[in-house]
Amino acid sequence: MITEKSHNIVDCTVRDGGLVNNWDFSVDFVQYLYKCLNEAGVDYMEIGYKNSPKLLKGSESSGPWRFLNDDFLQDAIQEKQTTKLSAMVDIGRVDVNDILPREKSLLDLIRVACYIKDVDEALELVRLFHDRGYETTLNIMALSNVKENQLDEAFEMISRSVVDVVYIVDSYGSLMPNDIRNLVKTFRKHLKNKRLGAHMHNNLQLGFANTLTAADNGVELLDSSVYGMGRAAGNCPTELLVAQLRNANYSLRPVLDMIEKYMIPLRDREEWGYLIPYMITGMLGEHPRSAMAFRSSPDKDMALQFYDMLTVPNVNS
Amino acid sequence: MITEKSHNIVDCTVRDGGLVNNWDFSVDFVQYLYKCLNEAGVDYMEIGYKNSPKLLKGSESSGPWRFLNDDFLQDAIQEKQTTKLSAMVDIGRVDVNDILPREKSLLDLIRVACYIKDVDEALELVRLFHDRGYETTLNIMALSNVKENQLDEAFEMISRSVVDVVYIVDSYGSLMPNDIRNLVKTFRKHLKNKRLGAHMHNNLQLGFANTLTAADNGVELLDSSVYGMGRAAGNCPTELLVAQLRNANYSLRPVLDMIEKYMIPLRDREEWGYLIPYMITGMLGEHPRSAMAFRSSPDKDMALQFYDMLTVPNVNS
Repeated sequence: MITEKSHNIVDCTVRDGGLVNNWDFSVDFVQYLYKCLNEAGVDYMEIGYKNSPKLLKGSESSGPWRFLNDDFLQDAIQEKQTTKLSAMVDIGRVDVNDILPREKSLLDLIRVACYIKDVDEALELVRLFHDRGYETTLNIMALSNVKENQLDEAFEMISRSVVDVVYIVDSYGSLMPNDIRNLVKTFRKHLKNKRLGAHMHNNLQLGFANTLTAADNGVELLDSSVYGMGRAAGNCPTELLVAQLRNANYSLRPVLDMIEKYMIPLRDREEWGYLIPYMITGMLGEHPRSAMAFRSSPDKDMALQFYDMLTVPNVNS
Repeated sequence: MITEKSHNIVDCTVRDGGLVNNWDFSVDFVQYLYKCLNEAGVDYMEIGYKNSPKLLKGSESSGPWRFLNDDFLQDAIQEKQTTKLSAMVDIGRVDVNDILPREKSLLDLIRVACYIKDVDEALELVRLFHDRGYETTLNIMALSNVKENQLDEAFEMISRSVVDVVYIVDSYGSLMPNDIRNLVKTFRKHLKNKRLGAHMHNNLQLGFANTLTAADNGVELLDSSVYGMGRAAGNCPTELLVAQLRNANYSLRPVLDMIEKYMIPLRDREEWGYLIPYMITGMLGEHPRSAMAFRSSPDKDMALQFYDMLTVPNVNS
């Protein structure tokens, strides 16, 4: 049972949504989102990645939210309000020299995303960000494909680490509510001294339901994005969490304001959400990249062809 | 826990989807759907309403699936296959003289929809259809607004009746998984001698999750529609049930075939699914009619205006 203030919403519209439009959000868009999330009472806004463009080839065309620069951020967010700011980094793509001490940055939280094999390296980064004063999370991606003994090893390292929050990430949108219940139980058992977070995708129309399931089982940090904007099938919609989370005190109206002003027009130009190729990769527990490529092809609505490509042996050979 | 064959899928694409396009489905469409559902192993196909056009004024422009005629049905479905056929009737809109004995009809199941106040009248119809040889269900609509003592009275009548299956219907798409769990528990407790069914809507992106919750708690008949087609926010998608229901033996490929050939082009012409006005009526536990009218107006994307209309006192006076 959720008790008041035991959950925090982390809105990932800019960071995860940037995977849809190559982070081509205007400063006006991000400022308005920040205003609306503040008014709604949303706890965190993830305003982008803090990776280094030097470490990511071919990224010159990306918008500024992919490589957050602290000076740029100061200009964009002129007045810090109640909603805390978060940035994500990837193993091997972040230059630690770019990370200022927290008191010199607008950022409050740095989240380290990694695959299970890189947890040790991720925890070194976590230590460094922690020492510079930030709240930290560790987001283990692609959990649906992780073996139990790998997870056990990771739990040992994590429980000894300084990380504040450990995320259950359903990268492929393939997990069912019962899977979430079981994962939360496992994480809870092995990480008694850590808070938990959940980041769900909507391939099987379960983004919101899985996030609720996590919340009902004691997960505190709940990722979402406005109108569900995020890679492929997108995320748990912020508006649904804000409207329906029990014992919470969020305001829906400002989120609807953002949706009307920016998200509905944006959805006309960019695509995300429940579409059959994403449903198929979710069902198969695969990365959505094949589905994203297919949705960019002239055959994008040939549901059967895509299904056969992924399930019939040698259909393409 | 679901055991094999304890659940049946009832595909409502034609009946509930007809509320979107005024039952303007071609015979080709319905024949192809029947073929695909058979190949998929879906248990029932609800092929329309069996109301009487004499009892429904202003319905002249509706397609034939709104007023199923047995001769027409024999022509349309030339060869009966494994998937059983179902029709729905409404209290006060059905002429019982239209209902042939089952052996002279292609229909196997007749479902009676009613509000809680009409349960007694509905059960009289059920008795009649039962005596003519049909399987029967009672679908109590708008459950979210029913008071406990009303439900208790209804349970008494229902448990003494001949009805085979009693449905939990989330007409407004306003129920959460925990509500479903509680409702199933209540229904189970009072209706020990009846099978249960679930019909969910997708206003809060919970159509599939709520149907799974019902199934996990022992509900046997699970309503859905292909690509989620149904009034307003639509239904639990058949493709997701077919793909993800545990211990089941359905085939997804034929459902994808139907989606590719008919549903994706249809969705380009007709609107259903998760849209903000439907989310708002779902959240407020209201009938979606105001949202449907709003989506037909030039202001259809003015999310805030719609929210204020429904929540701010006297905004329209």
